[in-house]
This record gives sequence, structure tokens and C-alpha cells, in this order.
Amino acid sequence: MAQEELKKRKRSDYKFHLEYRTRWSDNDMYDHMNNSIYYFLFDSIVNTYLIAHCSLDPPTSSQIGLVVHSHCDYFAPVGFPAVVDLALRVNKLGKSSVTYEIGVFERGKEQVKAVGECVYVFVDRETRKPMAEGIEPLKEGLGKVIAEKAHI
Amino acid sequence: MAQEELKKRKRSDYKFHLEYRTRWSDNDMYDHMNNSIYYFLFDSIVNTYLIAHCSLDPPTSSQIGLVVHSHCDYFAPVGFPAVVDLALRVNKLGKSSVTYEIGVFERGKEQVKAVGECVYVFVDRETRKPMAEGIEPLKEGLGKVIAEKAHI
Amino acid sequence: MAQEELKKRKRSDYKFHLEYRTRWSDNDMYDHMNNSIYYFLFDSIVNTYLIAHCSLDPPTSSQIGLVVHSHCDYFAPVGFPAVVDLALRVNKLGKSSVTYEIGVFERGKEQVKAVGECVYVFVDRETRKPMAEGIEPLKEGLGKVIAEKAHI
Amino acid sequence: MAQEELKKRKRSDYKFHLEYRTRWSDNDMYDHMNNSIYYFLFDSIVNTYLIAHCSLDPPTSSQIGLVVHSHCDYFAPVGFPAVVDLALRVNKLGKSSVTYEIGVFERGKEQVKAVGECVYVFVDRETRKPMAEGIEPLKEGLGKVIAEKAHI
Repeated sequence: MAQEELKKRKRSDYKFHLEYRTRWSDNDMYDHMNNSIYYFLFDSIVNTYLIAHCSLDPPTSSQIGLVVHSHCDYFAPVGFPAVVDLALRVNKLGKSSVTYEIGVFERGKEQVKAVGECVYVFVDRETRKPMAEGIEPLKEGLGKVIAEKAHI
Repeated sequence: MAQEELKKRKRSDYKFHLEYRTRWSDNDMYDHMNNSIYYFLFDSIVNTYLIAHCSLDPPTSSQIGLVVHSHCDYFAPVGFPAVVDLALRVNKLGKSSVTYEIGVFERGKEQVKAVGECVYVFVDRETRKPMAEGIEPLKEGLGKVIAEKAHI
Repeated sequence: MAQEELKKRKRSDYKFHLEYRTRWSDNDMYDHMNNSIYYFLFDSIVNTYLIAHCSLDPPTSSQIGLVVHSHCDYFAPVGFPAVVDLALRVNKLGKSSVTYEIGVFERGKEQVKAVGECVYVFVDRETRKPMAEGIEPLKEGLGKVIAEKAHI
Repeated sequence: MAQEELKKRKRSDYKFHLEYRTRWSDNDMYDHMNNSIYYFLFDSIVNTYLIAHCSLDPPTSSQIGLVVHSHCDYFAPVGFPAVVDLALRVNKLGKSSVTYEIGVFERGKEQVKAVGECVYVFVDRETRKPMAEGIEPLKEGLGKVIAEKAHI
């Protein structure tokens, strides 16, 4: 999607929200949160949602989600000691893969700081092969955060 | 201090509290927060307190705090997606150094998970030499979180 | 670029190489290097090249490079204790921005594990505004790692 | 041990050596490797040794090593893009616990930068209880890096 469109994202464009306190070490030498840290946060909100609302249990579930693609557009800096508001939605729900979009906001501020997407493929824990219907057990929970106009 | 004593630490033994949400990547292969992550959290509560209550501004203040010693005793595991309650106190306040103690608790649980100490020496930002009275500008704020019976 | 094309990348498609030992904490609960860690490695090879071959000095240079976009395609897992061979090239060199491509290989293995791109905009250290000719002082060094057929 | 003694550590005081390239994100806002990162490196050399020389296989071995105590004394800074030489020895070998000492040196420089210790207790993977003879299968390998005059 065009950066111009993503830059207009609002908290209300997302369905699940989670706040995260930044850490001292998130800031790199340029005194702002390092670009890589955003991906740590993406993983965190995605897995928190899967555990809390889709019955995923990472140490034991038979399927595990592996990231096959991720990207992020950075619009404005944020950094320690700010609190960030993460916002999640599902943009695409396939048979064995899910595309999540995550918006990063700063507490108390309206404008979005960064927007990213991660594509997870669900594979069998043992064989690490995609499971034909890997999403099935998670579908009810994921269905609740699907973006309007998303490709399902 | 003896591990037996530290193991009895309660939230009320500390003067400043800050909650931190754990991240997916905090857990290592053994499905619990990696031991190194605790030190990231120690740095985070210490610097949050210095910024919020002692007027420290990391990118510009003339003195900066460097860690010269740190240690931690781990009593019980905690891990993603738990929220941890960090708790801070000053155990010793020298002319250019401060010894902080941090307790790590899990939200909703009473027993302490880990207790650590970090010794920061305040040095001049440019020369990186200890400042004779480096603590002076921070003293009022630090004084408020000194542990009873601490060595001042 | 199509994933099928990227999947065929060889070490010889890149101009600068740097090996990195993985760390215990790079592996997440699924016993492979977490997807976010790749971005730490991208930053590391880019900045190593800029420091070693383009005279960038991160703590003092008047321009600093901020990431405005990054993405990565993951083809096969790699994890601790493997050593990874990072490979770098410049895909696009603008007036104030540079697009780097990084390939991640595992020592002793031929097939590429992941390929990513990062777009850095060079801004003035103080104002954090893009510098019209921010790339100028780095251009000679960057020119040496430009990909054939890249957009310059 | 007294800091004065530790500060005199030489590479030859250790039995196993491993070099690690620092990463961009290792440096914090003060332009040197953040104190917490040292513990990531400690874990990395310890587990590399256990895997390479003691037949430990972290994803499947019946015993796993949990850190119950760690500490570090920092003598001089080191930071990206330096390469660090890690050095390992066993200071104490108990029935179910091992005390490792790690020295951190910078490539090309003699003086030690930091020295730390980590105490690992080997527990059963399932019950997470200490294994009476947890060290037994690792003993031959660990025996080769025991410090002279160590407590065995």
C-alpha cells in the first residue's frame, strides 16, 4: 500500500490494542528507538493476541507460526522512555498463512509513527511443513480482528 | 546479601515501581525470560526514574551514568506474555556512584522472581572521568528512594 | 522484486561480506533465529561498511542515516550456534537516500537464507531534516558496492 | 574475588576462546556496548562450548541449564564495530551446578574489558527440578576448561 495512505492510519483502523513501555536499550546511538525493535514489538502483539484470544500455546501447540515476510515504514521517531500503543489487524487470512498489520503510536499522540506487516505461515511443529489447514483452530479468534475490506 | 534474605523481598521493600510488559523475544529456547533480559529491565527502571524524578536528560546532561558492576539472583522463572512489576531502591549513595537494587515481580503474584544490584558511576560526558560530585544534581530525587538502613 | 528471484541470490551477487556469529539469545522459542534479529544484522553490516569504507563516524558525523523503510523475505531458518555470512550491495543511490540489499547465508552452505532491503535517508544530526546532498561525502565508498543494473 | 585481581586477567587465564563481532544495536545512547549485552555474550560462549565440546543439544537434551546467579565487573568500555574475544573457564564444578567465568577482551588489545561469572544449575527439562547428577554427562568436556586452583 502507498506510504501516503499508511501515514494516515488512526488507532480506530485497528481492532486490538496493547501498550508497551520502551526500554533503555531500545534507543540506539541516535537517541531514538532502533528500527529493528519495531519488529520485536510486532511479534509481541501478534503472539499476545494468539495466546489470549486464539488458544495458541507456543510451547505445546501442534502448529507454530513462522514469519516468511515482514516490512515496515517509519514515519516519525519514538524512543525511550515513551510508552507505545501497538495496534493490530489481520489484512489477509489464507489457508495456512496470516498477514498482520501493526500500527505503532505513541501514548498521548495521535499521529502514527510506523506501520508494518508480517506474514506468518503456520507449520507443523515437528516437520516444519505448512499445514494445509493450519489456521483452522485459530480462525475464530483471528476473524475478530480482520480489517474491513481485507482479502479473506 | 545472603540469597535467603533477598528471596524474602516484598514490593513494599521498594520505593519506586514500574510495570513492564515482556516481549516475545525475551523468552529463550527454554520458554522463559532469558537471564540477560533482566539487566535490560534494570537499566530501564533506573533511567526512567532518573529522567522522571531527577531531571536527567540522557542526550544532553553533562554527567552520564556508567555501570561498573551488576549482579542478579534468580529465584523463579517468569516469561512472555507476563507483565512484570519492577521495583527500585537506592542501597548506597556515594559521591560519584549510586548502588541501585531492583526487584522483579510478576503481576498478580506475590513472591519475588529475581533481585539484582547495579552500581553506576557518574562521569563527565566528554572526558568519561568520574565527577567528584557527580551525584549532586540528582541527589534530591535519589534521596526519595533510598532504602531504610541503606549506607549513605 | 519477486521472491522467486531473490531466492536465487548467491554470495557473488554482493560486493561486501562480513561474518557474524549468532548468539544464544537470537533463537526464540522455536529454536531458530528470530525474524527481528535479521534487521539487527542488516544495520550492523551497513554501518560497518559506512565506518570502514565511507568515513562515517556515528558519534560525530554531521549527517546520520535514519531507516525509513525495511523489509525481509525469509526462505529457510538459521540459528545459534551457526555463523552467518552477511552480504551487502547498494541497489539505489539517491541524493539523500540509499537503498541497501542484504543477503544472509550460513557458513558452509550455499543457499541464501533471507534477503532484505533497508532504505536510509541521511539527515542533519541536529535538525533531523534530510540533507539535500547527504550522500555526497559517502558516495565514493558507496559507489564501490553498487549492484550491477542498480538504479543510480 | 577482588576487582583488583580480576582487572589483571589475561587471555591465558582462560581455556576456551571465541570471537564475537559486536552489533550496531549493542551500543546504547552513550556510544559503547550496553552493560546488559555482556550477559548475552556470556550465555553465547557458555552454550557454544557445551554444544561443541560437551554434547549438549539444547532442543532435546534431557537436562537444561538455568542461570541462578550472574554478575559482571566492567573495567573499560568496548563498542561497535569492535570485535570482542570472549574467554571461558570453569571456576567451580558441583553435582548439579557449574560456575563459569568469562573474560571480555577487545581484538588487538591486551587489557581485559570486563569479567563476569554465571552460575548454571542443571535441571530436568520436564520437571525443572535440579538433577542430582546433572553435570555427569557434561563432565568430561567441562573438566577441560576448569581453572587451575578452582574449587571442584
